[in-house]
Formats: sequence, structure tokens, C-alpha cells
Amino acid sequence: MPRFFIAASNLMGGVAYLDAKTAEHLKVLRIRKGESFTVCDGEGTDYICRLSPKGDGSADIIETRPTQGEPTVAVTVFAAFSKGDRPETVVQKCVELGAREIVFFPSARCVSRPDGAALIKKQNRWQMIALEAAKQSERGIVPQVRVHTAFDAAVAEAAQAEIPLFLYEEEHDLGLKAAMEARPEAKTISLFSGPEGGFEPEEAAFAGESGLISVTLGKRILRCETAPVCALSAVMYATGNM
Amino acid sequence: MPRFFIAASNLMGGVAYLDAKTAEHLKVLRIRKGESFTVCDGEGTDYICRLSPKGDGSADIIETRPTQGEPTVAVTVFAAFSKGDRPETVVQKCVELGAREIVFFPSARCVSRPDGAALIKKQNRWQMIALEAAKQSERGIVPQVRVHTAFDAAVAEAAQAEIPLFLYEEEHDLGLKAAMEARPEAKTISLFSGPEGGFEPEEAAFAGESGLISVTLGKRILRCETAPVCALSAVMYATGNM
Repeated sequence: MPRFFIAASNLMGGVAYLDAKTAEHLKVLRIRKGESFTVCDGEGTDYICRLSPKGDGSADIIETRPTQGEPTVAVTVFAAFSKGDRPETVVQKCVELGAREIVFFPSARCVSRPDGAALIKKQNRWQMIALEAAKQSERGIVPQVRVHTAFDAAVAEAAQAEIPLFLYEEEHDLGLKAAMEARPEAKTISLFSGPEGGFEPEEAAFAGESGLISVTLGKRILRCETAPVCALSAVMYATGNM
Repeated sequence: MPRFFIAASNLMGGVAYLDAKTAEHLKVLRIRKGESFTVCDGEGTDYICRLSPKGDGSADIIETRPTQGEPTVAVTVFAAFSKGDRPETVVQKCVELGAREIVFFPSARCVSRPDGAALIKKQNRWQMIALEAAKQSERGIVPQVRVHTAFDAAVAEAAQAEIPLFLYEEEHDLGLKAAMEARPEAKTISLFSGPEGGFEPEEAAFAGESGLISVTLGKRILRCETAPVCALSAVMYATGNM
């Protein structure tokens, strides 16, 4: 069933008042009066709606149920800026896989360092990709895509999670599995992932001093857009969300 | 250190005899006489080599060691043909993540069904992507990319693994985790993944009769190229390869 997100304030008295974008999208999908679709308020509730015969862009709510698509843990993916369409891949896949938020940040070896108007444009595009991925994957929220313009600020935020993981290819001892199993009750997890050339040793040292835990994802060297997707999949598995 | 695969028969008496492609690649990377690189025989051994001062395209083997990059389980990813660059994404990511082989097959809802010369061309391209991904991720083998031209034959092959998993969005009870934990000692695993529109119920029924085990990857609907990457990451986590 087609799925849309609309503001909770547009849902009242058994009626969903569709915004212009949603109405347009319904038209594109050729959904007619009397046909059903799902609207999610992004706050944990799905509304099964039927397009009103009035033709005024409203829809009758015929069933209400809790959203199913949210995992039991809040995972924030911190990904260094990367080249080309890699950030888009990270956003799309991580939203599908259940990330709560995606945060981009600059790192010493970043080849791409968007700022100013270019960054705002990119961020808008990433947010649009997050929305589309949330609809397609039947999420209960639209994960926010945010940006930190300083490495240190991103580290400081990541450190606040109960399990703050620093994905580091130079870590050879502690695996993601051991780190996850050390805190089985944790509900907030950060995954901090580097750019194309990996993190500088100084960055890893700073992250460690700030409370992040360096982990390896195994003996294979992953591309920068693969590492967060792999780690997030593993975390969903570890926390019983798969 | 740059990494290449060459046939074991080209390694003898402490010398690596480089084939034309590897020699060309060394030139592109501007590796000069006396500089080091790694050669892997694709059979479990890495050779640290130094380009010979003779300039005859040979290299002296200065150290021999077991390849580190292979996981302890053999996972074969069966992926339905899909559109655009999705098969390429599947090959690249699954090789990075440690798949033993990747096998494409046709399925009822496949939009793309390459055959004849087009299929051979695609298969060659996929194999080249597998080679590049194996070099980059420091694998000990180059996973083969194969094709089945019939759904039934792909199912029959997949069913031979100790844990033969059918990734099915209509499965709501058995999770990947429960299926993995039921056979913790397994060394061979199949991941059978559908096309853009998912599997037909008849295909799922046939797979079940053939011994495949339907599992869900959680409550989020994954794109066809995301599902095998997610499942493979989870399997590597479950089997202690992360």
C-alpha cells in the first residue's frame, strides 16, 4: 500500500488533510476516490486512509495502528563526507536499515568538504533521499540528516550514546560483536565511520580520549560507504531487530 | 600495500613471474624496482614481493604468509537479476563483506532478464568488479560470479548449504537470527534474495519444498540490492567474523 508522511496536526476528527505534495504524489500514483493508502504521522502511528469522495484533498481515516517499522534501538550513523554519490548511498541504505539519524562530518582525509550553499543543497538532497527511503522501507519516522562542520563536535555528540563505536580499520583486537555483547541492554548506539582514506591516527586517539570505542568490522577492508551499512546491519542483528 | 592476484603456477623458486595485466597495473601505480607489493595466489597464501632490479617483469618474494582476509564460513549469495547497476552493487559489496561466490538467477518478477551475448558481457563485467573488490578489500580469493538460467536450478544449488536461507518479506515469524542460532556450527550458508518486486508466493512455496528456510530481515522493507548486503553482514557478525 502506498505510504506517506504528514504532520500530526493534519490528522483530526477521523480525517486526514493532505498537504499539496502528498496530494500531488497520490495523483502521480493514480490513486482515486475511495482507494486506500497509509499515512504515517512520524510519531509512531499509521493511519489507513481512503481518499474522500468530496474531492477536496481530504481522506477518511478508516483504521489506526501503531507503526511497525521502528527498531527497538536508536542508532545514529556518523559518516565522514565522501565523494560522488557515496553519501547518498549511505543515507538511503541506513534509513532502510533502521538508523534513527544520519550525521555527516569533516575528517582529515576527506576529499570532499562541501560548505556554504553547496552543503545546504546537498543536505536538502540527502533529506529528500531519507524521506523516499523511509516511505519505501515503511519506517515510522523520517530520519533526520544533519551536518557537523567540525570533527570534534561530531565526536562529542557520538560519545553520548550508551555504545559509542568508532569503526577503525587499524583496530585489530576488539570486534564489533564483543563491544555489542558487553552492553546488551543499551538502547542508544553511535556508529562513527571514516572517509575514503580512513581516519588519521590522531583522530582515532582523540576519539578514544573522548570515550568512543574503536572496533574492527573484521579482516576485510571495507569501502567508506560499505562500513556503516555493514555495522548497522550487524547492530540490528545483535539487538534482535532482525 | 598494493595487492594483486596471480596464478600459483607463476610463483616458484622465490620469484613471482608477473602476468602482463599485473605488470601494467604496477606501472600505472608507479611502483618501481625495489618497491614492495603483495601478491595473493587465491589459494590462501600472500607473497610480499619486491620488483626485481632485472627489469624483466619478475619480483623477488621476500615474505610468505597465510592470507588473513577470508572468513571462517563459506557464504554463497544468490541474487535475482535486477535493473541498472544494482547487480554491480551486490557484487562489489558482497565481495567486500566476504561472500564466497555470487550467483545470479531469474525470478518471476524480474524486470531485467539478460541472456545470450548481453548476459556474457554482464557476467564478464561482474567478474571484473569482483576482482577489483577482492583486491581492495584484501580478500584471499577472487569470488566467482556465476549465473543460473533457471530459478529451479538456483534453488536446488542453494538448498545444499547447511543453512539455506530464503530472504522473504512475507515471512513474519522466523528471523535470520533464530535461523542462524539453530545451527551454530554450520560452515556453509546460502542467502537467496529476490528481485525488485520480491518473490511470487509460488516461488516461496517451491523454495520451501526444496529445503530453503524462509526468514525475515526485520520489519523494514529492504530494496533488492540492500537485502543480501544486510543479510551477509549479519551472517558475518553471527559467525564471529566481525
